[in-house]
Amino acid sequence: MYTAIKVFEIMWYWQGQKIPSYVNFMAKNYPPGFQYQDFAPHFTAEFFDAKQWTDIFASSGAKYIVLTTKHHEGYTLWGSKYSWNWNAVDMGPKRDLVAELASALRESSSLRLGLYHSLFEWFHPLFRDDAARNFTTANFPQEKTLPELYEIVNAYKPELLWSDGDGDAPDKYWNSTGFLAWLYNESPVRDTIVTNDRWGQGTICKHGGYYTCTDRYNPGHLLKHKWENCMTIDQRSWGYRRDASLSDYLTIEELIKTLVETVSCGGNLLMNVGPTHDGRILPIFEERLRQMGQWLNVNGEAIYNTSAWRAQNDSVTPGVWYTWRTNEKAIYAMFLSWPNTGHIFLSEPIVSEVTQVTLLGYKPLKWDPMKPTGLQVYLPTLPLSQMPCSWAWTLRLTGAS
Amino acid sequence: MYTAIKVFEIMWYWQGQKIPSYVNFMAKNYPPGFQYQDFAPHFTAEFFDAKQWTDIFASSGAKYIVLTTKHHEGYTLWGSKYSWNWNAVDMGPKRDLVAELASALRESSSLRLGLYHSLFEWFHPLFRDDAARNFTTANFPQEKTLPELYEIVNAYKPELLWSDGDGDAPDKYWNSTGFLAWLYNESPVRDTIVTNDRWGQGTICKHGGYYTCTDRYNPGHLLKHKWENCMTIDQRSWGYRRDASLSDYLTIEELIKTLVETVSCGGNLLMNVGPTHDGRILPIFEERLRQMGQWLNVNGEAIYNTSAWRAQNDSVTPGVWYTWRTNEKAIYAMFLSWPNTGHIFLSEPIVSEVTQVTLLGYKPLKWDPMKPTGLQVYLPTLPLSQMPCSWAWTLRLTGAS
Amino acid sequence: MYTAIKVFEIMWYWQGQKIPSYVNFMAKNYPPGFQYQDFAPHFTAEFFDAKQWTDIFASSGAKYIVLTTKHHEGYTLWGSKYSWNWNAVDMGPKRDLVAELASALRESSSLRLGLYHSLFEWFHPLFRDDAARNFTTANFPQEKTLPELYEIVNAYKPELLWSDGDGDAPDKYWNSTGFLAWLYNESPVRDTIVTNDRWGQGTICKHGGYYTCTDRYNPGHLLKHKWENCMTIDQRSWGYRRDASLSDYLTIEELIKTLVETVSCGGNLLMNVGPTHDGRILPIFEERLRQMGQWLNVNGEAIYNTSAWRAQNDSVTPGVWYTWRTNEKAIYAMFLSWPNTGHIFLSEPIVSEVTQVTLLGYKPLKWDPMKPTGLQVYLPTLPLSQMPCSWAWTLRLTGAS
Amino acid sequence: MYTAIKVFEIMWYWQGQKIPSYVNFMAKNYPPGFQYQDFAPHFTAEFFDAKQWTDIFASSGAKYIVLTTKHHEGYTLWGSKYSWNWNAVDMGPKRDLVAELASALRESSSLRLGLYHSLFEWFHPLFRDDAARNFTTANFPQEKTLPELYEIVNAYKPELLWSDGDGDAPDKYWNSTGFLAWLYNESPVRDTIVTNDRWGQGTICKHGGYYTCTDRYNPGHLLKHKWENCMTIDQRSWGYRRDASLSDYLTIEELIKTLVETVSCGGNLLMNVGPTHDGRILPIFEERLRQMGQWLNVNGEAIYNTSAWRAQNDSVTPGVWYTWRTNEKAIYAMFLSWPNTGHIFLSEPIVSEVTQVTLLGYKPLKWDPMKPTGLQVYLPTLPLSQMPCSWAWTLRLTGAS
Repeated sequence: MYTAIKVFEIMWYWQGQKIPSYVNFMAKNYPPGFQYQDFAPHFTAEFFDAKQWTDIFASSGAKYIVLTTKHHEGYTLWGSKYSWNWNAVDMGPKRDLVAELASALRESSSLRLGLYHSLFEWFHPLFRDDAARNFTTANFPQEKTLPELYEIVNAYKPELLWSDGDGDAPDKYWNSTGFLAWLYNESPVRDTIVTNDRWGQGTICKHGGYYTCTDRYNPGHLLKHKWENCMTIDQRSWGYRRDASLSDYLTIEELIKTLVETVSCGGNLLMNVGPTHDGRILPIFEERLRQMGQWLNVNGEAIYNTSAWRAQNDSVTPGVWYTWRTNEKAIYAMFLSWPNTGHIFLSEPIVSEVTQVTLLGYKPLKWDPMKPTGLQVYLPTLPLSQMPCSWAWTLRLTGAS
Repeated sequence: MYTAIKVFEIMWYWQGQKIPSYVNFMAKNYPPGFQYQDFAPHFTAEFFDAKQWTDIFASSGAKYIVLTTKHHEGYTLWGSKYSWNWNAVDMGPKRDLVAELASALRESSSLRLGLYHSLFEWFHPLFRDDAARNFTTANFPQEKTLPELYEIVNAYKPELLWSDGDGDAPDKYWNSTGFLAWLYNESPVRDTIVTNDRWGQGTICKHGGYYTCTDRYNPGHLLKHKWENCMTIDQRSWGYRRDASLSDYLTIEELIKTLVETVSCGGNLLMNVGPTHDGRILPIFEERLRQMGQWLNVNGEAIYNTSAWRAQNDSVTPGVWYTWRTNEKAIYAMFLSWPNTGHIFLSEPIVSEVTQVTLLGYKPLKWDPMKPTGLQVYLPTLPLSQMPCSWAWTLRLTGAS
Repeated sequence: MYTAIKVFEIMWYWQGQKIPSYVNFMAKNYPPGFQYQDFAPHFTAEFFDAKQWTDIFASSGAKYIVLTTKHHEGYTLWGSKYSWNWNAVDMGPKRDLVAELASALRESSSLRLGLYHSLFEWFHPLFRDDAARNFTTANFPQEKTLPELYEIVNAYKPELLWSDGDGDAPDKYWNSTGFLAWLYNESPVRDTIVTNDRWGQGTICKHGGYYTCTDRYNPGHLLKHKWENCMTIDQRSWGYRRDASLSDYLTIEELIKTLVETVSCGGNLLMNVGPTHDGRILPIFEERLRQMGQWLNVNGEAIYNTSAWRAQNDSVTPGVWYTWRTNEKAIYAMFLSWPNTGHIFLSEPIVSEVTQVTLLGYKPLKWDPMKPTGLQVYLPTLPLSQMPCSWAWTLRLTGAS
Repeated sequence: MYTAIKVFEIMWYWQGQKIPSYVNFMAKNYPPGFQYQDFAPHFTAEFFDAKQWTDIFASSGAKYIVLTTKHHEGYTLWGSKYSWNWNAVDMGPKRDLVAELASALRESSSLRLGLYHSLFEWFHPLFRDDAARNFTTANFPQEKTLPELYEIVNAYKPELLWSDGDGDAPDKYWNSTGFLAWLYNESPVRDTIVTNDRWGQGTICKHGGYYTCTDRYNPGHLLKHKWENCMTIDQRSWGYRRDASLSDYLTIEELIKTLVETVSCGGNLLMNVGPTHDGRILPIFEERLRQMGQWLNVNGEAIYNTSAWRAQNDSVTPGVWYTWRTNEKAIYAMFLSWPNTGHIFLSEPIVSEVTQVTLLGYKPLKWDPMKPTGLQVYLPTLPLSQMPCSWAWTLRLTGAS
């Protein structure tokens, strides 16, 4: 489970696609001629506290985070030499936000550092020129994308490099192969680096360290390759929306459902949070992240370092998802609603004489084998204060297969 | 249960008391010489949607709201003739926020309209002059406070007028008696108006429609006079604080506890929410308000139009609070935690042969009379999905006294 | 000769009269909803240096200045108690500009201090209410105009009070008589104060210390009452216009012509300069003022403390204007162009045997009496570097009548 | 005679050299952390009117102008692809100021277009890197300087390219030879282009189209190579200074003296004007430019298309400067003050029987040959209104050598 930070999506809807509601909002509230670039001095981050962010991320039970160091609008959150006057050190916060977060993570947590980086940029004139020439020239990767990638790897030594945004150009244009060769063979992180699959048109969901496929990818079945479901707590945006109301945010029940489904199908979850212009994580996001951490405190055993099991979800009882822990030879059955009947039927496991069933956070439960297969597990009737957790629960089965 | 909106507390801490953390924040983030008044153009309220606010307030189960129309800094949220260029129509939003909210309330809800208004103003030169003369002159009430009070009553016809801020001046200085005589005898709201007790030094907690005593007043025992506990969801501020973190907000459990205690002791609850500079109610506030509404959907019968009972809370079982409904001759026992034992002992009620006990949102429960007094109520063991509500529960006793 | 400072005329053209060019400029360059009041924080005056202003005014040869302490938009350049948050101490410069200029004038010059003050205010709601009631109520003068007038007289002890803006209301409404009685009989400046004629509808050009009649009043003939020509160096505005080009500014020749005409007809000249939002007097204004001073260094004798003479201008030779100095029994003939003929004919003076004619800044000239009246004066043919001054010249006649 | 526009010098004094008065002004008037880049949105140019500028330049008698398209701070006044988000199209005016001025010049004047361009940039990280490596790498010229130079030449087809700012790097680093070869042999302006001498360390005053040597270069004697005196009307700055007072601007007498001296020694004059943030040329600058034009209307014959003569100035009479017109075989003697004596002695010309002397704008004058050499010219005693011009005058001598 991860947490990502993306900003600045408005640029495209407003100045790229010119969606009326965005265009009208800008016309109503800003001076004529105000452009996306004019927002840069408004991005102040005066409340950005990397230690506080780290604490919130750690409290969520995440194992690593992915920071959007540069999105498609090209503004870099570090003081890139290749993005002079269009980065967080020169314009806006006047601070290297990537450096601050990297330091805080390493000083006060065991979270791993992932860096998101967009290959292309919507409005960069050099990219637009290359595109107009059908990518027969590659001035933009040469002068911007590749120097930046080398710069962030050397400066911040990430454990994950999350590439994005091929701009409909092939990996050959981006010289991804050359860069990845350096990354895995020569870079200072060559022994530890993990990458994703967005390195050029056609690579997505086909090549790379792990697959991300589409945003909010959640196939519901097992994939052979390692993959990730990158999604957002605010259902409608990666960036922070001031006008989002409560109903736009996923509830903790929906988030845990997504986590459980994703992990059961062999994926990781990347759960996005959009910070404010002044560098804060909104309390509603903090609440969701801390609730996730509370749940993982009890149920993390079914999530961390587990694999997909033979069956991903139960074919008879809805809302039951399985994971598998090789060393312990344990099956985990997570169920998203507490049955009114006092028992739950798991149709997939094959039980044996030594099968044991435990409610995580509570104690072993009684069960009966069922015909032709599976088992019936008897749930305790617990007063509220003795429930091990809320929102979803986990049964650990050992001695079953 | 009510909801209040106050803004602009920073003025006093920064420019009045000069608390270092406030002074330093301003020095670090604003140009030298920046004063409180310079914030006015930053208060834009572009997202203020009175209909949306009304919906949120209504969803909370509140019966009326109290809008801070003018706080001690003097800025009026309506276009007062007596506060030219220091009000929301001339400076900032360019809208009459009081008018918009009053209209929306009346069009789309049954919420009653309360208006908060501060008698004095921290920095108004006319008030300061009067104060320097020990209130032997009364230019400020004459030219500012009283005209404003007449103005808002005539314009918005509130059902509650919530006065505040005597500035250590007696009610004679404020000519409160004269104004209240008009309000109750001649004003357009003379038949319906309710007021509080803050009408001049010495009146607070002694005279007036109902008592407010101190902020966050929650005495824990019965008062003879009608009173109100005005408190804040953000424990540390009436105004919105950008840097508040999750732990600064009261949890829904704490809020319901406060509501239950307050109502049991004969008080009303005024639960404050601080909106943002751009006119929004933060999702975390919206969540608390809607949660409160969910609870009241089930338990409102124990709150609305009830009176304090003979006993306010149970003298034996902690966390049990009583209210009384005269028409139905019903006692309500609200309990803040669900016992692990499966039964709860109520020591205060005197039972009879016809006593009936019902869990609100569920059905009648079994009980046994106890010696020397009270009763033992047997609670059901319900699976989570069948619990009538969360956070606190209510037993209705009829045929008891 | 005086210098006045007025600001903020845009308010009326833009928000009052809604002249398209003003409305469009605002729409094109400011956010929607931007109002006049939003300019207040932009009025910063960071370069305002009262000592420097005083030096420039003194260099112009002026004997006193008139500072616009409050124009029709109501913003006071001093920290008025009666204009809280709409004055230069609370909003914008955060300085008392009137106090600074008054101090500098008195410390480093012999200039007299005049204060301009507008009775009415275009948009003040109390004034608008009174006006809507045909001035049968007088709340605005009572709460705003009169307290302000007492305030500035007591605080700054001006030697001239320049009232303006009756708002079509009679002097009775303004209680001008009462105020002037105090001013001349009881105020701290009762022995020295001078006032003008704008104290209520109908008083202008009829009653008062001296007459101002209309803006840019320059009748070209003698008035019986003392009067003043208040005009502007920028021909089109009292306030500073960023987009004024060179041709909008009167040339020094035109300014001296206006001065000469005005003084010859018994008037004083009030020559307006509009300062910038950051408190500067533009170099082009400074140049005009210093040029005026250069001219007065030579010709001041014909201007200061002179009276209108029997004839104001010559009935035969155009461009010749007369003044009279009683003590010296001297006639001054100022001529606006240097004749190519080498002599100039003055038809008005009656010469005698002891008549002497001197070119100011040079020496006595030869002359011949003419029939039926007047005299021919022989001008020297001077190389440029020996001319006593530029732009206009003066002949002093003694022993003539 | 030319006119140049440079902006943005403050950057270096404030953030480079950290001169206290600049640092303090910024600290006093801007928020902490405000950087040079934050000024970009304040550079609005809403009053910039290329047609109006062209008219003013043309009225000055200039034959061409030089526009500072990019100064050492790197901000380009055109929408350079190589300076994304740090140019006038993306940030600030949102207009291509170079394109607008180029069009207006060509449409409504016969002025030639010169473009100033700085090779280096004070704070560009790529330049700083190259410099730190003693210019053994040349990433900055490759990715920034050279692409920009090609871009402006191709887009705006200037008639003069005014290069500046070698940053202590040799021409080899800048690849100036390569660029100039293209410019003179292949570029669209190859047949007409003129350049100066600032193309790398050591080239200044040694190589190039014409020499500029130092700023305000005015040697007072003849140079063998064509050269230019680039100087400023505001004696202390190339950029506009809001706080400049009248005494900081050169008078028209001083400007004409500089022009006369420069042209007599074989140079051209580049007279700089700094525009405001909102795109205006201040009236005081406009006045100086128009005055220069008035003078040239009469005396241009002695300036345009003239050469240095045998003697540059008169060795006996001070303030007399000579030029020579080959076709007409005319000597021009410009004199800066009008003698009181009625005659002027020119010691340098060798007269003959057919020598004729004319005062430009007037008519032939009488003269006498003098011993051992030279001539005495008798000046007319003209009334002011018949003087051909002010500030300086010219004698044309034909039939002399």
